[in-house]
Amino acid sequence: MTVPAVDRLYLRSAIRLAEKGLFSVTTNNPRVGCLLVKSGHIIGQGWHREDGGPHAEIDALSNTVEDPRGSTAYISLEPCCWEGRTPPCTTALIKAGIARTVIAARDPHPRVAGGGVRALLDAGIEVTEENLPEETDALNPGPLMRGENNRPFVRLKTAISIDGRTAMADGQSRWITGEEARADAQYWRARSAAIITGVGTVIADDPRLNVRDQRFGNAKPLRVVVDTGGRTPRDAALFGEKGRIAIVCAKGVESINRAEMWEQQVGPAIDLAKLLETLSDQGCNEVLVEAGATLNASFLGQGLWDEMIVYIAPRLMGDTARPLAALGFTGMEEAISTTVKSIDTLGPDLRIVLTP
Amino acid sequence: MTVPAVDRLYLRSAIRLAEKGLFSVTTNNPRVGCLLVKSGHIIGQGWHREDGGPHAEIDALSNTVEDPRGSTAYISLEPCCWEGRTPPCTTALIKAGIARTVIAARDPHPRVAGGGVRALLDAGIEVTEENLPEETDALNPGPLMRGENNRPFVRLKTAISIDGRTAMADGQSRWITGEEARADAQYWRARSAAIITGVGTVIADDPRLNVRDQRFGNAKPLRVVVDTGGRTPRDAALFGEKGRIAIVCAKGVESINRAEMWEQQVGPAIDLAKLLETLSDQGCNEVLVEAGATLNASFLGQGLWDEMIVYIAPRLMGDTARPLAALGFTGMEEAISTTVKSIDTLGPDLRIVLTP
Repeated sequence: MTVPAVDRLYLRSAIRLAEKGLFSVTTNNPRVGCLLVKSGHIIGQGWHREDGGPHAEIDALSNTVEDPRGSTAYISLEPCCWEGRTPPCTTALIKAGIARTVIAARDPHPRVAGGGVRALLDAGIEVTEENLPEETDALNPGPLMRGENNRPFVRLKTAISIDGRTAMADGQSRWITGEEARADAQYWRARSAAIITGVGTVIADDPRLNVRDQRFGNAKPLRVVVDTGGRTPRDAALFGEKGRIAIVCAKGVESINRAEMWEQQVGPAIDLAKLLETLSDQGCNEVLVEAGATLNASFLGQGLWDEMIVYIAPRLMGDTARPLAALGFTGMEEAISTTVKSIDTLGPDLRIVLTP
Repeated sequence: MTVPAVDRLYLRSAIRLAEKGLFSVTTNNPRVGCLLVKSGHIIGQGWHREDGGPHAEIDALSNTVEDPRGSTAYISLEPCCWEGRTPPCTTALIKAGIARTVIAARDPHPRVAGGGVRALLDAGIEVTEENLPEETDALNPGPLMRGENNRPFVRLKTAISIDGRTAMADGQSRWITGEEARADAQYWRARSAAIITGVGTVIADDPRLNVRDQRFGNAKPLRVVVDTGGRTPRDAALFGEKGRIAIVCAKGVESINRAEMWEQQVGPAIDLAKLLETLSDQGCNEVLVEAGATLNASFLGQGLWDEMIVYIAPRLMGDTARPLAALGFTGMEEAISTTVKSIDTLGPDLRIVLTP
């Protein structure tokens, strides 16, 4: 086995450590893992455990079983070099006497973006940059998207029949898909910083939009209701669950229960680009849109989406049932093309993941 | 290797021989293959090559490289024991001095149904019955269905967008799916004895409904247009292609070009069960329905289908585009449940095969 192959093995272990933060690191920070190796032995490992907590490097350094001086740090992301809620990790690595670092990707954050690598090199620490975008991008699509486009990574989630219907005409929709697909949907909620829905869905389905599956820890994504006129029922089930709730509404709408009222100068509709910018400013990395035909159409039509999770139940609901997205196209040239990223079976149903 | 394992190997070879008739044996007869083995050597092989031609056993016996006396015949289906268009195969096997036969399935045809096995046993020929329904049912779903229900095996084929649409509101539909999916559709046409469509599809899309792909030989399925009022355009593209055309219409409709006019006492709609019975009586084993929302809904709603091939293009066509099936359901309990039999990717598209 060549040395670079060993590097990649350790680095993949660091990436697996980073994954431990999938459901607890959803705002502000990326998910990062760090492995300290000295003379062929792992002497410490750590990961970014929760929003605002110590970074992976600090966590690893606090868990060493041996003096880290002279060791190699394998880190899934370039270490930070600026003082945020915690001091820069580069300083900690330098102080600890780390001899070499191997990193899987540069941090796209404008205050890092190569600065971490430079700081280490300036301190005489060897830096090996492996480039493993497939592994690292999937771990942190949010920080990447926020760095590039000042908006979170947006996932649309929908459950349809094979003929593309989300509910009967009168709104009946429980349950289109089976248990396995519904359990899977919990995973996407748990890794999201926010769930966005429309008031129509709140009125029709009264969803709680929370994470109920214990496998995903204590995730409490912000729940956002797009509700221009403030029609959200005061006894909606989502108020019965812990966690922040924001209602995006026109200026002057009366406040509802314990919801944050996010007032917008509303044109013909809520400005979704602006809403996403607000969410990004609040540190939301990934957001999940669980909405009906109208809001789905807005995100899709405006190109404000990065991934679509489509659960397909093998049943036929017919032509009078509700559509996936009210796009109102008249010509084939308007149709939105997507790419199939993956297909899986979930019990009797299918899960298809699409990208633009 | 045990002897039964060797039996199954030879039998699977016989089944592969039968598959050679997939596109040339579509009416009346099942697809059958036969392998003659003597002292561990294959001394002859044959298959049912075309409708009305010699059966597999006769074909194999006519191709032997050695005297078949004392050999074992591996046959994918129980040999026939009645005089049809050809003399009974049991007689030929007995005359040839075959010592043993191994068969993969009984022939469901009411004039055989175990009679072939009995005839062989009565002649002192050893009979081993393996039961390989997965392999043999897929080869001959038509004869099975005709034997049991007096109708052909019915496949519905449809190409939809991910949101379940077959065409824009004005009928534009070329091409929802890519080349690979369209090429695959030729396979299903080629193995069908008949293709059924509605006059609406003929008027909107002007399809030829023929087999153009040379890989599938010279298949010329009967083309059936469900057209109560005789609205099929006299210059429709399907008249430009070789092969039989039948128009199912109300009594007294004027005949069109070279089409056979199949008159029906029409109620609110064509009696599809009766149409399928007619096709079965004409020897059609498998039929493919390539239709629009109305005819699809009739087959689906009446439960007159056995398999649905759904090509899904990863694009969104929107809510004003045309539905897969005009089922007009109002309650969830009306939804038609199906089972996913297989999923495949075909270039950028998906192919999902559903069964009731």
